[in-house]
Order: sequence, then structure tokens, then C-alpha cells
Amino acid sequence: MKKPIIALTMGDPAGIGAELTLKVAMDCPQYHLVAVGDMGVLTQANRLLGNKVELLEIQDFDDAIFTDKKDNQLIVYQAGIPVNMPVTYGKLAKEYGMAAYNAIITAIDLAMQNKVQAVVTNPINKESLHLAGILQAGHTEIFAQRTQTERYSMLLVHGPLKVAHISTHVSLRKACDLVSKERVLEVLNLVYASIKHLEGASKPIAVAGLNPHAGEHGLFGDEEIQEIIPAINEARLQGLNVEGPFPPDTIFSRAMGGEFSAVIAMYHDQGHIPLKLAGFQIDPDTGRFKEIAGVNITLGLPIIRTSVDHGTAFDIAGTGKAQHQSLQQAIAYAIELCSYHSVSQIS
Amino acid sequence: MKKPIIALTMGDPAGIGAELTLKVAMDCPQYHLVAVGDMGVLTQANRLLGNKVELLEIQDFDDAIFTDKKDNQLIVYQAGIPVNMPVTYGKLAKEYGMAAYNAIITAIDLAMQNKVQAVVTNPINKESLHLAGILQAGHTEIFAQRTQTERYSMLLVHGPLKVAHISTHVSLRKACDLVSKERVLEVLNLVYASIKHLEGASKPIAVAGLNPHAGEHGLFGDEEIQEIIPAINEARLQGLNVEGPFPPDTIFSRAMGGEFSAVIAMYHDQGHIPLKLAGFQIDPDTGRFKEIAGVNITLGLPIIRTSVDHGTAFDIAGTGKAQHQSLQQAIAYAIELCSYHSVSQIS
Repeated sequence: MKKPIIALTMGDPAGIGAELTLKVAMDCPQYHLVAVGDMGVLTQANRLLGNKVELLEIQDFDDAIFTDKKDNQLIVYQAGIPVNMPVTYGKLAKEYGMAAYNAIITAIDLAMQNKVQAVVTNPINKESLHLAGILQAGHTEIFAQRTQTERYSMLLVHGPLKVAHISTHVSLRKACDLVSKERVLEVLNLVYASIKHLEGASKPIAVAGLNPHAGEHGLFGDEEIQEIIPAINEARLQGLNVEGPFPPDTIFSRAMGGEFSAVIAMYHDQGHIPLKLAGFQIDPDTGRFKEIAGVNITLGLPIIRTSVDHGTAFDIAGTGKAQHQSLQQAIAYAIELCSYHSVSQIS
Repeated sequence: MKKPIIALTMGDPAGIGAELTLKVAMDCPQYHLVAVGDMGVLTQANRLLGNKVELLEIQDFDDAIFTDKKDNQLIVYQAGIPVNMPVTYGKLAKEYGMAAYNAIITAIDLAMQNKVQAVVTNPINKESLHLAGILQAGHTEIFAQRTQTERYSMLLVHGPLKVAHISTHVSLRKACDLVSKERVLEVLNLVYASIKHLEGASKPIAVAGLNPHAGEHGLFGDEEIQEIIPAINEARLQGLNVEGPFPPDTIFSRAMGGEFSAVIAMYHDQGHIPLKLAGFQIDPDTGRFKEIAGVNITLGLPIIRTSVDHGTAFDIAGTGKAQHQSLQQAIAYAIELCSYHSVSQIS
């Protein structure tokens, strides 16, 4: 199979995205990566890390040639107008929000035109996006809107945990309102369509309850009875291997033990708390994260998109300390998804 | 200091409580334990485990004498009328609910009369309690009502994680309603009063947000702005070392890293998911829990009460496979709390 080309967005200029981009480029020269973002921002990060990478700027994407590229070279595709000033790391700015946004939509458009086979994203800052007038809640929503996708879901992966979400960036009250039979069934189908190609697909998909103890037969909330159980029954009629609803406080221990192919979480933190507890390890001696790993995949899009599952880390941006395991894993997942995408759409 | 006497309730007869009671009695004969429950239920469990323990039934609690007790002996105080039939493990029954309840209220009354210095509880089944007409949501509520306590909170402990809850056994929608400035301040004070004696008390208490990203400055919900931040500010004016509100999906990684003395969780699963993920490890080879550890402490009561943080495990009750690390830890915590309770009330 031809090596897929991956568009890697640089993320917020004031965060760790540019630095991570250079680190994966050095560490994994076997990938066909194109950094999509701002040449000045990447040049500044490169200087910071000792100018180890030679940045090859292209104006026209068709100029991206990988055949005689050296291992220390990274192709950079300028997205939008250049950020004509040195970056102040950790700062909120309209210009940074706009540069981050331009990188994302440029990468999406390249994927929609089949010029790249997947998009991998670095973290963005929502407040800078807001300053730039971009009001979507996050990457996932930008991808959905730009690709005109109505049915999508975020799947987070860390080790044996694969967790898809009924909702993400909404208040907890709104998240309760969004637990409907239709949405649970939709996410079950999105997850089923994607994981059937991945490892562990023969195991059931587990559905979490919304309420403590999954409502304990209606004692604490009835969304399980009214919405979640009917969705599970309907999915089974469609031939899906689904179990639940399970109490939310033990379903993730069971998933870590390898019992399920994936878990459907009813709201952002129900899935994010266990994933980040499993994936983010803090070194008690230094008080710093010693492992940051985990991948975010958007299901339902007409293109492949994966992402790191951490933030911009403004507190360490510009210090060279950022760790790129999560980004490496995100690229590896994107490549794995590419390997069957030509045969069967991920959605 | 005189050794404290611990009343250990047997829990639901159809669960693993009687078996765990005998296992800790064999493993930790140095404790001054009194099993409070049903002689027949404990005798059946003892037979199951090879009759290794000699059960000494007492009718009057003042007959409990520890001075010449042998290591293989366990004092049993019959609570309520005997369950006059062999137990069917895993079964729901009115008689079982009533026997479990009788053990709890008997133990509470012994503690209120200062005949025991702490109560440690084994798991109960709420459905059997309901069949017996007991409608409280769980142990915590039974303890609060019986001791006429209005302000209380559940503190769960596992390793470096100590997590108190704003609410527990209510629907998620109701839990959102219960996040008030007054309640957050109340729990902060309950936690502060208890942990100031425990290890790590010099570190700040961390408060979680209710919404994803702690609401991201009001973008996803405003409970942080309306209720949680005002409570934190008020607690600081009172001299408490408090920080937050933090995004719920990274606060527990930070707590695992030892940054906080305790975490205030806004609802049941926000705290229970990370605690059980950290405390319940499943062996991928057998699909069974290989470690179950964690302790539940009720703050605010006039008596000391700790508990296991797992359930009745109906699926393995009667097989002898139940593991008693969590119960051992619950007893150890009760004894630690006893050591300063005479000087300063835990609440």
C-alpha cells in the first residue's frame, strides 16, 4: 500500500503544538507528514529546540514531494496569512486563534480533496479562537461543520480503553438532556462501524448508565429505563453486540480488564475522568506529568481525523519539555485507520 | 491507649459480608472486633470456610470480654431475631434486608452508648432493604438518620486519593441541583475537620468543577461561577487551604500525584469512577477483580463509621473467593480515627 500522507495541524501558536510537531518529525521520519500551520511559528519552535529540523516551506500543496526528502526535513504548508511576530508562549491572542483555525480548515480541505489521507491535530485554545470570532466548542465541531457531518462522536483511546461520548462540550445539565434513545443508538452505530476493523471487535460494546448505579432500577433517575435500555434493545435487533447499561463507577475497571471492545459514555467527564486517570501519570517527585498518552478520534466524518487528548499546556509551552507520546499515538492510529479506509469508510 | 472495640456489621446475609468478617477475624486477631449480625448466617459462612473460627455468641453486650479471648475466636452479638433458615447466596429477600438493617442499627446504638468506639460496615443490598421496608438510599443515610445528623458527607479513600462528595445516591439531574454554595462550604468544613489529623493535611483541599473543563468560564454551565467559586472564597476567608474549581478530568490525576490532601467531588460518579478505577484491578486472564481496596468514611457523624467501598458481590458469595483487603483497610482507618477521636471529634 502507498504510504498515506498525514496533515498535522500546528495547534495554538502559544501552546506546545509546534514543538510537538518538530519532535515527532525528528522521531518518526518514516511518516509522510506535512505540517499545516504557520512557517514563522514553526521556525521559532525549531530554533528553541536547536534547529535540528530543516523546514521546507511549500506554497502549492502539489509541491509536497516525499520521495527524496531527508530524515531531518519537514514539509510545511503555510495556512492563511503568516503570523508576522514572535510568539509569546502562554498568551491569548486573536491572531493565534485565527492562525490555529486556518491550519485546521486548510487541513480539512486537503483531506476532503484527497490530497492527504488523514488529519492529525495539535491542541488549540478555545479562548483565543473566541477572540478570533470562531465560536465552535472545539475541534470536533469545526470538523463536523466544515465537512457537513451531522452524526459524529468523539472516541478516546488509551490502552485497552476505547470510549465514545454521547455529548462532550456542554454543561452537565444539558448533557442529561442529550441522553436520548436516538443519540445512544446513533453513537452505538458509529462506534460499531469504526471498531469492527480494530482489535477486540468480537467483544461487546458496553453502554454506561447516566445515573449512579445506572439508576438502580429507577430509584435514582429514569434515563436508563426511558432512553438507554430501549436504544440497547434496538441496537441488538440490528445485530450489534451490545451490553448494559452498567453502573458508571465499575464499567471502566471492567473495560481496563479487556472485557469490552468499547464503552459508550453518557457525558464528557464520565469518559474523560477514567481515560485521563489511566493515561496521565504524575511523577510525585516533580509534580509533573511523566506520561501523557491517549488519542482522540472523531467518528462519523467523511475523512480520518485523530488528535492528541491533552491541551495546549501553556505553563510549559516554549520550554521544550512537552512530551509527544500522545501525538505519536494519534499519528499511528491515523495510519491504522487509513489502512482500511480505502476499502470501507470509517463511518 | 486502650484498644478500641470495633463493631463489625455482617452486611447482607446473601452477600460476601459474613465471609469477609471471618476472614478478617482470622487474619487480624489483634483487633478488638465484635461481629454484629446473625449467628446462623455467620455459622453457615464459617462452615463454608472450614470452621476455622470459634464463634462466641453473647446475649448481653457487656459479656463481651477480650482479655482471655483466643486468636481463633470471634465474639458475635446477635442483632434482632435470628434468621431461622439456611442462606441462599445471591438471593433477594425481605428477611435478609431486615437482618442486615438490624445489624446496622444495633451497631450504631452500641457506638452512641460508647460501648464500641467505631462501627465498620459490610456491604448491603438496597433491594432487599426495600423489601424489608427500609427506604433509605444506603448506609450513610441510615447512619445520619439514626444519629440525628443533618450535615454529613461520604469520604472515599484509596491510596493517595481521598474524595468527599457533595451528593451520592441521587439522579444526576438532582445532583446538579444540589451543588449550592452552602453545601460546598459544608463539605469543605467537614473534610477539613477530619483530614487535619491525617497525613498530608498541610496540602490544599481541591474542589472539582461540576461541568466539563469546570465550565470554561461559563461557556458550559455556570454552577462554578454562581455556587462553587463563592464557596471556595468563603472557605478561604475562614482560613481553609482550598484550591479550585479544577477541571474534573485532570483533578484526580493530580490528586494521585499527591498534590492535594483531599478532593471535593460534585456528584457520586465524579468521585467513584476514579476511585474504583484506581482501586479495582481486574486480572485480564481470569476476568476477575484481583485487587479490591478502598475505604468509605462518613464525615460529620457523632460516631466513627468506616466501610468497605465495594458491594455484596452476589456472583461470588458463598464460594469463599471474596477478598478482604478493603475490609482490613476500613478497620485500620477506623482505628486510626479512634486514636484522636477522644481528643477532638472527627466532625
